[in-house]
Amino acid sequence: MSSAVVILAAGLGSRMVSEMPKVLHRVAGEPMLAHVLATAAELEPEVTVVITGHGAEQVEALASALCAQAQFARQAEQLGTGHAVLQALPALEGVEGDVFILYGDTPFIRPDTLEKMRAARASGAGLVVLGFEAAEPAGYGRLVREGGELVAIVEERDADAAVRALTLCNSGVMCVEAGLLRSLLPRVGNENAKGEYYLTDLVALARGAGARAGVVVCGEAETLGVNSRADLAAAEAAFQAGRRREMMEAGVTLTAPETVFFARDTMIGADTVIGQNVVFGPGVTIENGAEIRPFCHLEGCHVSSGAQVGPYARLRPGAELGADVRVGNFVEIKEAQIDKGAKINHLSYVGDASVGEAANLGAGTITCNYDGVMKHRTRIGARAFIGSNGVLVAPVGIGDDAFVAAGSVITSDVAPGALALARGRQENKPGLGLRLRERLKAIKAGRAAAADKGKG
Amino acid sequence: MSSAVVILAAGLGSRMVSEMPKVLHRVAGEPMLAHVLATAAELEPEVTVVITGHGAEQVEALASALCAQAQFARQAEQLGTGHAVLQALPALEGVEGDVFILYGDTPFIRPDTLEKMRAARASGAGLVVLGFEAAEPAGYGRLVREGGELVAIVEERDADAAVRALTLCNSGVMCVEAGLLRSLLPRVGNENAKGEYYLTDLVALARGAGARAGVVVCGEAETLGVNSRADLAAAEAAFQAGRRREMMEAGVTLTAPETVFFARDTMIGADTVIGQNVVFGPGVTIENGAEIRPFCHLEGCHVSSGAQVGPYARLRPGAELGADVRVGNFVEIKEAQIDKGAKINHLSYVGDASVGEAANLGAGTITCNYDGVMKHRTRIGARAFIGSNGVLVAPVGIGDDAFVAAGSVITSDVAPGALALARGRQENKPGLGLRLRERLKAIKAGRAAAADKGKG
Amino acid sequence: MSSAVVILAAGLGSRMVSEMPKVLHRVAGEPMLAHVLATAAELEPEVTVVITGHGAEQVEALASALCAQAQFARQAEQLGTGHAVLQALPALEGVEGDVFILYGDTPFIRPDTLEKMRAARASGAGLVVLGFEAAEPAGYGRLVREGGELVAIVEERDADAAVRALTLCNSGVMCVEAGLLRSLLPRVGNENAKGEYYLTDLVALARGAGARAGVVVCGEAETLGVNSRADLAAAEAAFQAGRRREMMEAGVTLTAPETVFFARDTMIGADTVIGQNVVFGPGVTIENGAEIRPFCHLEGCHVSSGAQVGPYARLRPGAELGADVRVGNFVEIKEAQIDKGAKINHLSYVGDASVGEAANLGAGTITCNYDGVMKHRTRIGARAFIGSNGVLVAPVGIGDDAFVAAGSVITSDVAPGALALARGRQENKPGLGLRLRERLKAIKAGRAAAADKGKG
Repeated sequence: MSSAVVILAAGLGSRMVSEMPKVLHRVAGEPMLAHVLATAAELEPEVTVVITGHGAEQVEALASALCAQAQFARQAEQLGTGHAVLQALPALEGVEGDVFILYGDTPFIRPDTLEKMRAARASGAGLVVLGFEAAEPAGYGRLVREGGELVAIVEERDADAAVRALTLCNSGVMCVEAGLLRSLLPRVGNENAKGEYYLTDLVALARGAGARAGVVVCGEAETLGVNSRADLAAAEAAFQAGRRREMMEAGVTLTAPETVFFARDTMIGADTVIGQNVVFGPGVTIENGAEIRPFCHLEGCHVSSGAQVGPYARLRPGAELGADVRVGNFVEIKEAQIDKGAKINHLSYVGDASVGEAANLGAGTITCNYDGVMKHRTRIGARAFIGSNGVLVAPVGIGDDAFVAAGSVITSDVAPGALALARGRQENKPGLGLRLRERLKAIKAGRAAAADKGKG
Repeated sequence: MSSAVVILAAGLGSRMVSEMPKVLHRVAGEPMLAHVLATAAELEPEVTVVITGHGAEQVEALASALCAQAQFARQAEQLGTGHAVLQALPALEGVEGDVFILYGDTPFIRPDTLEKMRAARASGAGLVVLGFEAAEPAGYGRLVREGGELVAIVEERDADAAVRALTLCNSGVMCVEAGLLRSLLPRVGNENAKGEYYLTDLVALARGAGARAGVVVCGEAETLGVNSRADLAAAEAAFQAGRRREMMEAGVTLTAPETVFFARDTMIGADTVIGQNVVFGPGVTIENGAEIRPFCHLEGCHVSSGAQVGPYARLRPGAELGADVRVGNFVEIKEAQIDKGAKINHLSYVGDASVGEAANLGAGTITCNYDGVMKHRTRIGARAFIGSNGVLVAPVGIGDDAFVAAGSVITSDVAPGALALARGRQENKPGLGLRLRERLKAIKAGRAAAADKGKG
Repeated sequence: MSSAVVILAAGLGSRMVSEMPKVLHRVAGEPMLAHVLATAAELEPEVTVVITGHGAEQVEALASALCAQAQFARQAEQLGTGHAVLQALPALEGVEGDVFILYGDTPFIRPDTLEKMRAARASGAGLVVLGFEAAEPAGYGRLVREGGELVAIVEERDADAAVRALTLCNSGVMCVEAGLLRSLLPRVGNENAKGEYYLTDLVALARGAGARAGVVVCGEAETLGVNSRADLAAAEAAFQAGRRREMMEAGVTLTAPETVFFARDTMIGADTVIGQNVVFGPGVTIENGAEIRPFCHLEGCHVSSGAQVGPYARLRPGAELGADVRVGNFVEIKEAQIDKGAKINHLSYVGDASVGEAANLGAGTITCNYDGVMKHRTRIGARAFIGSNGVLVAPVGIGDDAFVAAGSVITSDVAPGALALARGRQENKPGLGLRLRERLKAIKAGRAAAADKGKG
């Protein structure tokens, strides 16, 4: 049986005070819509419809990039959730089975929660609403149940005291049988204070049509929606709190969990220790028993067992650190394979490079990978030693066991076991250091006098 | 009508455990007294008197620097708030209208709160006290009102149960009609447990003299006073919490608000994104739609729209980044104009310089701006390319479209479109890398053997 | 009278999800067992027995390194606390007086708390148990007292409502008279649900044998035990909160205390200011009135009065900063004496070196201290000036007042007052910068065309 997902992503989000459509704002390093699309993908729907409006082009560009099959329906005016889903009906023409309705600004609904909704539908409900027990229910629509069935969704302003006392609230997320949705949605009206079409009216319509309505309940954290930058920060904080807890449960030491920031896909093995103030961008995997010292920033990289990284190391996409590698302070690595036991300890930039086993790159080593037009690669052999402040002008290769003298600018290959030198010869000029300084002081005094004279 | 401000700044602050006068301790990057002087300045007073005592010279030096018209009155012995203000009377001789009494260790009173006090005075009160609703009133003096009028300030120790139940507390801040202050202040006595002269006695004296006393109420956060380093940290935290909230409301994304620290004058445009662990010193403006990545430190700089900064970038005073500029990791910029689209991505120091549009400075670029005596400027033209580890010895100019080879030390100007090279020629010595290492190992082994023999 | 300490350190800690024995996990920069051994050492015991089991070799290696007199008893199977201490009895053969029983996963018991237990024993109790008032007592064994005497330790599951209402809980820490321990311990049985031998049974046995049992009460924070990575993080947080409070009380300004992380032995003088995000490893002392700016990482170093460090400075073991020294951004210092007023402000590595008074090291200065086999020292004289990007190849000496030109690689000594130059001569090639770029673009275009053709 086919199924579909409709994602509402047309809203302006005026409280964001932004020129960017709300669903493109980032949480956990990714646009909110990307989270929702990833969750939707786990349902393996045959049809995915994104309802767009404000900033539709930007939103559609992102959604297309992340979900090749995504279709779009424009909601020119934002006349309510019912009106939004109505725009999706043409795209849902041939769908049978479940239609899930998700929101681009509610990024944390879990796939297994949606699977529970699917199961509830399969066991006979025509429509299933996702509810949550609210710590502070005031302001939310309440879910009124009788004998396990959902009988009504009552907005705060329409609720009597008994309904206001309920704490089970409406998340807005729904799963509706496709045919039922197609037949009922055009009947949702807008005779209400705001003149909008509310999806919640489907419950009464469905029951009127003889269908059952059910409820699935999830944790309040899943239903967290974003309407302001403060909400965005709160969503980020909730996400991080969850990931930190999971990491610790999986055997990762976080010295100060509140200072470590993960991405959705960060993977870290047990017995790895993460120091204070470490930020993970997307695409990082770390094996067991590595150490990430304070003030590191990692994205798109792999760190093997026994490696020590930081403090103040930046690993950028394509950095691949072998076992027991050491990357020290003020070091940036990008698109580079660093083999087992190699050391890059201080103030270095290694990009578009391969570094052999047990090689040692001195302080200030720079791979000069860009000539202003193209990028080139640097190959450094096993056990090679690059003296301090060595500049390796790519494309260039340093052979196994080769030795590059400190301060050398290397522009042509160095054979295995060879020594390369490329630096000026030292000249010492006795007394000239002192005399130079005196001359400079005299110039400075002269200028100051001239300036004073100019004023006089 | 003229007005005056008296700022009490004589206290020792013994709980600070400091050799520095209390009011010079910093919050939000500035001495507390600087905050109070800035607030006072908004009232545009004709007379500003700072009461000094402990560390008077340091305090007066700061106040003079920030407020040219500031006058000082020394309070040799600290005999209470009434005694402090008494020292100011000679300086207040010709003043008519309002005299505001502020405290150097209470940095967060808002100018609009003081304006409310001025308005309350204008509408007939001889004296207006600033009160706040305390979450935990124990310990504070309570403001007793009858029909909108202030009838007494009662200290905790003198309060009966009914007064202790009051939550409206005394901040100490007052606005008094100048003539009333001059007539009543000498009548404040010191017949109390501590033998001190209390400013709060003015309320009873004023009422005795037939004047009305009023109350203006502000938020508790404004009245936050500092008596210890823990208080100082709490004041900083309160300040930061407020600024973070304001920034988010104005459309700035703070990925992790609790890790971002602002100065009082930080200005950031909407749709700018601030990553984790960013510290702002004074004097920073950022336009709309820039990105400040994690671990950045900015002070006295300007960042234009579309610029990307960090991670690990330090912008120091005089750094001016044009639109779409990129400043990357481990880069320090100082007194330098970086034009549109220029890139300084890695491990560089650019000081006392101008960098032209779309120029590209390679990893490890250093402007050598100091010769030990004077500072000199470096001019880099549009689209110029500085190869990695380039050292530009100022004063020096690199023309538009010029190309500096990697590892060059440039001491004289490079014409537009020219290529400059200044580095040693590479020599490769086959096999010498391996032989050198063997020789070094032999030396090391020899030394170890000699050391062992020495012990034997 | 002799005394002894028994430390239980055999547990697996399965909730740690670790291959490392639980007691070796670190809090405040040190293995938990190191904290407990340090506390034990303050009691000056004649015998210290560590009970080992899981990972015994690793645990014993650490304990031996920290406490030369440590003895070990293996507990092959973990059959309860009573069984664990039973393994220590042979080692306690000749002991008279106090035997303290501590836990390797309970790192924060204070020495003065143990002294109170010793005093309680000295005043007549045969056995003293350390209790704490629990905020949430559920789950802990309760201490039942009658007239000041401990009459029973009742586990939660065996407690009636009256006992469950007690909030005084058992920490597990005990002090027992040696002879009593030897006579009673073998009588502890395992007739209980888990079939384990519980140390708590000693209370009933002691009373049965006519001895008195006493209680000493400490704060709950001291008794914090670690069973998971989340517990470890909580222990770290508790430790840091305490140290931050102590530092502020001692007159240290912490701008954002929650972002500063201390080690157990960090010592900082009054009026030193610590900015945001500073991490201290072990062995740091800072004198009065220094400034540590944001994003610094310090370990094993000494910072004198008036010194300014950071932002982004890394001081490693052996860094000794004299008065008024300045160490700036992206600078690493290791095993180096930096004399009064010297400046190392930008992007430098200074290791195995001495830097004279008022010397100035330019941006990008690197001491090249390692030749791939041995480490060598660099000596820089007073008032010496090292131009930007200078590489000093150790062993090498730069005399007082000497001047090293920017971009020089210095391999032999420079006399006092001399100027040294070691860099390539600059060549300018008019127009070649532009032509080079055009050539590179042509190559790139050619490659792209070839690649396209290859696909066609």
